[in-house]
Amino acid sequence: MFSENHKKAGVCYPQGFTAAGVRAGIKKNGNLDVAVIYTEKKAAIAGVFTKNLVAAAPVHLSKIVVGTGTAHAVVANAGCANACTGEQGIRDAEKMAIIAAKELNCRADDIIVASTGLIGSNLPMDKMEAGIKDAVKNLSSEGSVNAGNAIITTDTYSKACATEVEIGGVEVRFGAIAKGSGMIRPDMATMLCFITTDADIDQKLLQKALRDATEVSFNCMTVDGDMSTNDSVVVLANGAASNKKIVDKGDDYQKFYETLKNICVELAKKIAADGEGASKFLTINVTGAESFADAKKVGMAVANSPLVKTAFFGQDANPGRTICAVGYSGVHIIPEKTSIKFGGLTVYDKGLVTKFDADAMKKILAEHDIVVDIDLGLGDTAATIYTCDLSFQYIKINADYTT
Amino acid sequence: MFSENHKKAGVCYPQGFTAAGVRAGIKKNGNLDVAVIYTEKKAAIAGVFTKNLVAAAPVHLSKIVVGTGTAHAVVANAGCANACTGEQGIRDAEKMAIIAAKELNCRADDIIVASTGLIGSNLPMDKMEAGIKDAVKNLSSEGSVNAGNAIITTDTYSKACATEVEIGGVEVRFGAIAKGSGMIRPDMATMLCFITTDADIDQKLLQKALRDATEVSFNCMTVDGDMSTNDSVVVLANGAASNKKIVDKGDDYQKFYETLKNICVELAKKIAADGEGASKFLTINVTGAESFADAKKVGMAVANSPLVKTAFFGQDANPGRTICAVGYSGVHIIPEKTSIKFGGLTVYDKGLVTKFDADAMKKILAEHDIVVDIDLGLGDTAATIYTCDLSFQYIKINADYTT
Repeated sequence: MFSENHKKAGVCYPQGFTAAGVRAGIKKNGNLDVAVIYTEKKAAIAGVFTKNLVAAAPVHLSKIVVGTGTAHAVVANAGCANACTGEQGIRDAEKMAIIAAKELNCRADDIIVASTGLIGSNLPMDKMEAGIKDAVKNLSSEGSVNAGNAIITTDTYSKACATEVEIGGVEVRFGAIAKGSGMIRPDMATMLCFITTDADIDQKLLQKALRDATEVSFNCMTVDGDMSTNDSVVVLANGAASNKKIVDKGDDYQKFYETLKNICVELAKKIAADGEGASKFLTINVTGAESFADAKKVGMAVANSPLVKTAFFGQDANPGRTICAVGYSGVHIIPEKTSIKFGGLTVYDKGLVTKFDADAMKKILAEHDIVVDIDLGLGDTAATIYTCDLSFQYIKINADYTT
Repeated sequence: MFSENHKKAGVCYPQGFTAAGVRAGIKKNGNLDVAVIYTEKKAAIAGVFTKNLVAAAPVHLSKIVVGTGTAHAVVANAGCANACTGEQGIRDAEKMAIIAAKELNCRADDIIVASTGLIGSNLPMDKMEAGIKDAVKNLSSEGSVNAGNAIITTDTYSKACATEVEIGGVEVRFGAIAKGSGMIRPDMATMLCFITTDADIDQKLLQKALRDATEVSFNCMTVDGDMSTNDSVVVLANGAASNKKIVDKGDDYQKFYETLKNICVELAKKIAADGEGASKFLTINVTGAESFADAKKVGMAVANSPLVKTAFFGQDANPGRTICAVGYSGVHIIPEKTSIKFGGLTVYDKGLVTKFDADAMKKILAEHDIVVDIDLGLGDTAATIYTCDLSFQYIKINADYTT
């Protein structure tokens, strides 16, 4: 479903989409830094954005574009977040859209704009203008890899995937690129995610599908508990697959939603696994909760605990820190009903840290992927949270980011 | 007020208190690990404990003792937290009290019990029994330093202070020892704090004074956002100063409260400054808030942000991360009304990261103590939060705690 070929195809896998990523000199290291994704056939669009009250200029602008319901393109850059840049920032974000619209022969409000990188600096608009023009010239159906690389910052690799589903006898395709590594947490973070699909779907249903998919994917991952000013997840549906338009919540919608959700979960897992300095990928399954909100709260408390994260980094079996985080999560748990497993091995049960096979535990903690199961024993609702450990490397990356 | 002599005197500075700290072999490194604080004259007592639902056995027991309103002694150990130990844990905590009561010729419910250290292990009760007996034998008016050292875990030094105040023409003395380094955050953490005073004060007023003092001191500090299972702050007031008993909220109470508050703030600052792996002590002043709760919420979001903390560790001027944390704090701030200063230098104002003197900033960030001022421009309420940076050393300490 998410093969290497699919990843390579990325946002260009659905019919009618092209992409490009170019070097505009915005990143200090000279890497690719301006991306354009384009569909000639106008797409229905949906977006979910950061809830941070200090939202970046491009977020303000893109919310307006999503409000129009349709768009032709995404223009994005890495290296400069265009956040905390006031009026100048808004003008610069608008100018990104105006430049792209001119090159693509469309309207400025047909362009989704996104930026990621350092907060508090103005965009170098001369470089940006040249970069956008260059990217538009280079648009191709093989441009997704470059586009993906042009939006990453401290990510160690670009995240991409693609898949297809049959809807009403027609093959409908999905593709996506995403970035995000630090400042990752619920309600999204320094993450950008652009999803393309050639499905024909009502815009309101598209927005509902994206919001629901986000809730169980990007809003269920965390790296460091910080929430960025720039987080944006946008989906463009251009209808090129010519499926019978999805206009209600019937079977077609369910298929569409499940596929979109799988894409989002896949990318959320990749982002958590590539958390800044991560040496472990942790999946926290919380079951037996009275509500999804409770399950998520418990999972997030555990996933955001620096003490839990450093223990996994140190391959140190320390169930006490996990139950401790469950206890302060704010959910009314009952310690005597709670049980915890690391890699399938019970470490806490009926109010007690249990004795476990130390050798078996050593093997479990040496793995890259570790599953933590927390059963609250109170209800029948579950949530899964994705995160990573907290390592020396995280400190190194973030102690000298601007210098 | 908090001189070296005062620190040395610690909990034995008020009349009628003795203390001891001994080696019982509970800490793996062989350091002092069992402490006793004693007053022959029965003391009024007050206590504030962790809100973590997975509270340790000694916390359950000490809450009951505080409910009786009076006590003769505190028995505490480091090296084993006696948390997540179920029925056995409760029995062991009770046994600590029973052993101490026998040695001190008082009732078991006259003994406050506290433990700190690794979660999930049972107390070695043979060692504990010998340790308590040894400590009682060694009780002296010069025992505070040893008692202070016997309750520390990853702390790099023991926290202590003492002071006096004139109440109704009589000198009333206060002394305290405290520990806490990791798992430190609002509503307290792996912290223990024992305060002694020879003031004569009504028990209900003592409880009120402690609760109010805790709110602006220990509940306004954070190291890593974790909240421990064992946090306990206890004050014993034995009345040996023979002041006119404080029975209402008049001037005498105010003097008493202010002095107790100063003690608590002083210790909270010491604990934050000695946060695990800390290289910086950060004071976050939030002003212009509509309520204390809002001011505290903003300050805590900034103080708990790993990105803010690592930036200060790296001596990296990154105001974007600070305003970002203010933005996601959950308080309805207005970016255009918010201003931020590092060491008195404005770094964010009117929605913009401002230009500042880079050389002056370099000097500010090179200091050990850094003050961050955040003015929300919305009201006239303030809060001050104490924290530290996040360093390589924090990871090192916590990655291999149990091994």
